[in-house]
Amino acid sequence: MSNTASWTLASLAAMVDARLVGNPDQLVRGLATLQEANAEQLSFLANSQYRKYLADTHAAAVLLTEADAEGFKGNALVVANPYLMYARLSHLFDPKPKPSAGVHPTAVIADDAVVDPTASIAAGVVVEAGAHIGPNVTLGAQCFVGARCVIGAGGWLAARVTLYHDVTIGERVVIQSGAVIGSEGFGFAAEQGRWQKIAQIGGVRIGDDVEIGANTTIDRGALSDTRIGDGVKLDNQIQIAHNVQIGDHTAMAACVGISGSTRIGKHCTIAGGVGMVGHIEICDNVFVSGMTMVTRSITEPGAYSSGTAMQPAADWKKSAARIRQLDTMAKRVQQLEKQLLIVTQGTQGSSES
Amino acid sequence: MSNTASWTLASLAAMVDARLVGNPDQLVRGLATLQEANAEQLSFLANSQYRKYLADTHAAAVLLTEADAEGFKGNALVVANPYLMYARLSHLFDPKPKPSAGVHPTAVIADDAVVDPTASIAAGVVVEAGAHIGPNVTLGAQCFVGARCVIGAGGWLAARVTLYHDVTIGERVVIQSGAVIGSEGFGFAAEQGRWQKIAQIGGVRIGDDVEIGANTTIDRGALSDTRIGDGVKLDNQIQIAHNVQIGDHTAMAACVGISGSTRIGKHCTIAGGVGMVGHIEICDNVFVSGMTMVTRSITEPGAYSSGTAMQPAADWKKSAARIRQLDTMAKRVQQLEKQLLIVTQGTQGSSES
Amino acid sequence: MSNTASWTLASLAAMVDARLVGNPDQLVRGLATLQEANAEQLSFLANSQYRKYLADTHAAAVLLTEADAEGFKGNALVVANPYLMYARLSHLFDPKPKPSAGVHPTAVIADDAVVDPTASIAAGVVVEAGAHIGPNVTLGAQCFVGARCVIGAGGWLAARVTLYHDVTIGERVVIQSGAVIGSEGFGFAAEQGRWQKIAQIGGVRIGDDVEIGANTTIDRGALSDTRIGDGVKLDNQIQIAHNVQIGDHTAMAACVGISGSTRIGKHCTIAGGVGMVGHIEICDNVFVSGMTMVTRSITEPGAYSSGTAMQPAADWKKSAARIRQLDTMAKRVQQLEKQLLIVTQGTQGSSES
Repeated sequence: MSNTASWTLASLAAMVDARLVGNPDQLVRGLATLQEANAEQLSFLANSQYRKYLADTHAAAVLLTEADAEGFKGNALVVANPYLMYARLSHLFDPKPKPSAGVHPTAVIADDAVVDPTASIAAGVVVEAGAHIGPNVTLGAQCFVGARCVIGAGGWLAARVTLYHDVTIGERVVIQSGAVIGSEGFGFAAEQGRWQKIAQIGGVRIGDDVEIGANTTIDRGALSDTRIGDGVKLDNQIQIAHNVQIGDHTAMAACVGISGSTRIGKHCTIAGGVGMVGHIEICDNVFVSGMTMVTRSITEPGAYSSGTAMQPAADWKKSAARIRQLDTMAKRVQQLEKQLLIVTQGTQGSSES
Repeated sequence: MSNTASWTLASLAAMVDARLVGNPDQLVRGLATLQEANAEQLSFLANSQYRKYLADTHAAAVLLTEADAEGFKGNALVVANPYLMYARLSHLFDPKPKPSAGVHPTAVIADDAVVDPTASIAAGVVVEAGAHIGPNVTLGAQCFVGARCVIGAGGWLAARVTLYHDVTIGERVVIQSGAVIGSEGFGFAAEQGRWQKIAQIGGVRIGDDVEIGANTTIDRGALSDTRIGDGVKLDNQIQIAHNVQIGDHTAMAACVGISGSTRIGKHCTIAGGVGMVGHIEICDNVFVSGMTMVTRSITEPGAYSSGTAMQPAADWKKSAARIRQLDTMAKRVQQLEKQLLIVTQGTQGSSES
Repeated sequence: MSNTASWTLASLAAMVDARLVGNPDQLVRGLATLQEANAEQLSFLANSQYRKYLADTHAAAVLLTEADAEGFKGNALVVANPYLMYARLSHLFDPKPKPSAGVHPTAVIADDAVVDPTASIAAGVVVEAGAHIGPNVTLGAQCFVGARCVIGAGGWLAARVTLYHDVTIGERVVIQSGAVIGSEGFGFAAEQGRWQKIAQIGGVRIGDDVEIGANTTIDRGALSDTRIGDGVKLDNQIQIAHNVQIGDHTAMAACVGISGSTRIGKHCTIAGGVGMVGHIEICDNVFVSGMTMVTRSITEPGAYSSGTAMQPAADWKKSAARIRQLDTMAKRVQQLEKQLLIVTQGTQGSSES
C-alpha cells in the first residue's frame, strides 16, 4: 500500500457526525480490524462477536456505538451505525490509483464518439462510433465500448471491460474487470434437430449507482432491453440472460445465474450460486439462500431455500440412496397406517380418536 | 438503436415463404413483441400463452399460423412455424455494426500469419505466428489469436476473445466476448503432497456453426484435442475441461461445468448450472434439468434431474434436517413392518396377503 | 502441432531415473495415450483400467511399473510412478510458444515500473506505476498489471490477465487467460434500503508455484490481504471472495465459489462446483465432493458431501415432492411407533424389548 493520506480524529468525527472521545489531534493514516490495527489506524466495532478484541486493540481510535463506548479507554468515534460510518470513511484510505483526465495516445476513439474532457481514457481502450462518455468517467486499460453506448457521469470501469453496442449506463456505475455487458443471449429456434440463431436486437439499460462484478455477464435483450435497476449490486461471475429485469436496490452474491425473461423485484437479496429458471417473477423483498434452485415464481416476500445439508460423505451416500427410495418409503408408511388401523379397530375398537 | 432498414411486407413474405394477408406495401422497420410493437414493427405469435395480446396489437404485421390467423384483422404473414421464421427475419433488423474488411493499424499480426483480404481485424487485435484467418472472418477489438490457430470462413469473434495456440475452428462460428479457448486444463500429478504440472499438449477442435458464449472457457486437450461438434451451442460462463467431446447439435445453457474426458452425445440439451463429473459418457438425445449433478454415465435417452425443490426457508430447514435422519427413519419403518407382521400374524393370523 | 523436438529413449530414461528396457536409440517425438500413440510417441500406463491397451500399443516406448513391465515386449521405461514421470517428461513436448525476452513496442510500461531484462512483455500489455516484473516472467498479450504489483521470477501469465493494483505474486506462478486478481470485493453497508460501497483497501498475496485458471476471479481484501498459499492450484471460473485464505497445496476444480473471509486449510481438495459460505474455517486434509454446499466449518479431516443423486426426471419429481413432505412423514412414523407400542403392550405385553 502506498497510501499516505492522514487525517486528524477531529476531522473524521466531523465527516461522520460522531461524538469524539479522546484526543482530537490524533492522526489516522489507515483502517484495520481491531486485532490488526496499529497506533495510526482507525478501527470499528460493528459485530458483537468481535467485542472481545476491543479492550486490547492498538488502534488509534475505534468507531463504535454508545453502548460499546462505555468503559472503553481509547480514543473513540461514537456513532449510531459504526459499520455504515466505516463504509463512508473507507474511501479516504483507498489506495486505488486516481487517473488524470484525458485520452491515452494508444486509445482508439471513433471520430463521432463524444468523450467528456473530464473523462479519463486509459491505454488500449477502444470506443466505437456514436458512443457518449460522460463527465468524470474512468475507462480502465483495454476497455471496449461499442457503438452508441452511453456511460453516465462518474462511471468507473476497471481494465478489460466489454460493452457491446447499444448499452446505456446511468451515473456513478462501477464495473469490475472482465465483465461483459450486452453479449448476444442464447436465442435459437429448432429446425429439424439444428439450432437457428435469433438475432439479439435489444440492448441493455443499467440504472444509477449500480455495481457489476468481475467476469459477470449481462446479455442484451432479444427484442427489448435487458434492464438493471438503480442501486443494484451484482457480485463476480453472475450470469444475467436476455430480457431479465432486476428491480432497484437488489443485491446478488457471486455465481448466481438468472435465465431469460425472469423479473426480479426490488430490495431482494440473492445469495451465492443461486440459479433461477426463465420466465418467472420474484416479488420485492425476497431472500434466497445459497445455491438454491428457483424453479417457480415467488409471490410472497420472505426467505426461500433448496438443497440438502452437508454431511460426512459416508453418511451422505446413505441419505442420497434413501432419497431415491422415498416414494416407496412413503407408500410403505401409508400401508403401515392402514394395517395398524385394521389392527387397532379389530382388537381395540375405536378407542383411539 | 440506429437501425433504419425497412422492408415491404411483400418482400418479407417472399423471404419466409409466407401467405400474406393484408397490405403488401406495408413498411416494416423493426421487430417487437405483440404488446410492444408499434405500427412499423413486425411481431410474431409462437406461444399460445401470448394469444391474448393478438387482438389488440399495434404491430404492422404478425407472423402466425393458419389457426391463429383465423379471425385476425391485421396484416399477417401466415407460416407453419412462426418462431423459426421470426428467427430467420430477425437478422434483417440486427443493429450489430458490420465492420469493413481490412486490418486496423493498431492490430499486431505475425509476419507468417495468413489473413484473408476479406477478413476484418479490429483495433488492438494480436494474431500470432502461423495462424490462418479465413474469408469474411471478423475479429473484434483486442482479440488474441495464438500460434497456428485456424478460423474458418465467416467466423465472428466479439471483442476480447482469447484463442491459445493450436485451436482449430470451423466455418461460421460465433464466439462472444471474454471466451477463452485452449487454456491449459487442470492436469497435475501428486508427489508427496505437492502438485506437479502436466503440460497440456493437445489442442481444441471446433466444428462448423458453433456458438460459444461470453466468458465461457474450453481447455485444450492434455494429449489429443478437446472436441466440440458441428452446430453445438454453448451459452455464457460454461466450463469445458480438457479432453471433453461434445456431439453435434448439442446445446448447453449458462453456467454448466463439464469435467475432464467426459463425452456427451448428439442432440443433447443441458440446462443451466448442470455439473458433470469426469470420464463419463452421455448418450445422444439426453435432457438434463437445471443444476443437476451428473455423477454417472447415461446410456438411455430421456430426461434426468437431481436436487430438491425450493421451499420457504423455515420448511426447508425441517426437510434438510429430516434428510440427514433418513437412513434412521428407513430402518424405523422396516422395524415397524416387522413388528406389525408379528402383531397381525399373532392376533389375526395370515388374513392379509 | 508444430513441435518437432526429439529425444532418444536413453536420454529420457536418464531424466526420470528409469530402467530402460529395449532400444536406447529409439527416437521419441511426442506423447500420446496407449491407444493413439504412433511409432515415434512415448506413452504411459498409470491406471490399471487401461492395461488392456498395453499389448497392442504402437508406442515407441511406454512408461510403466515393474509389475506392468513383466511380459511387455516393446521398449519400456520402468519407474515407480509412471504418471508422475509422464508429468515430468510432458514439458519436453509442449508446443506452447516460448517468447523471447524484451518488451513489445506496443506495450505501455509506466516510467517507474521495473521490468527485468530477461522478462518477456507481449503486444498490448499495460504495466502501471511502481510495478516490479521479475526475471524470466512472461506477460501474454494484452495483460494489465496494476500499480505496485510484484510478479516473482519465472511467472507465466497467458494473454488477457488482469492484476489490479497491489497484487503480490510469488515465483513460478501460472495464470490462465481472463483471470482477474485483485478486483473489488462485494462490500456494502445497508443504509435505509440502499447499499453504500465499502472501499476495498487490502491487496492480494499469492505464494510460489500457484496456478490460477481461466476466468477465475480473486477479490482483494477489504482491509488486509486475500491470501493464496504456496502450491495452490485453482482451476477455471473459480470465485475467491475478499479476505479468503487458502492453505498451501490445496487444489480446487472448476466453478468453485468461496465466500468472504472463509479460511481453507492445507492439502484440501475441493471438487467442481462446490460453494462455501463466508466466515467459516475448513481444516487441513479435507475433501469436498462436487457441487456440495458447505454451510458450516469443518474441523475433522475427511470427505464431505451434499446434494441428491441424479434420477430419471419422472422419478426425481416424486422424490422431490416426498422431500417436501418429509417432516410430516417423520411425524407419522413416530405416531405409528407410539400406536404400535400401545397395541403390542395391550395385546402382547412387553414381549418385545
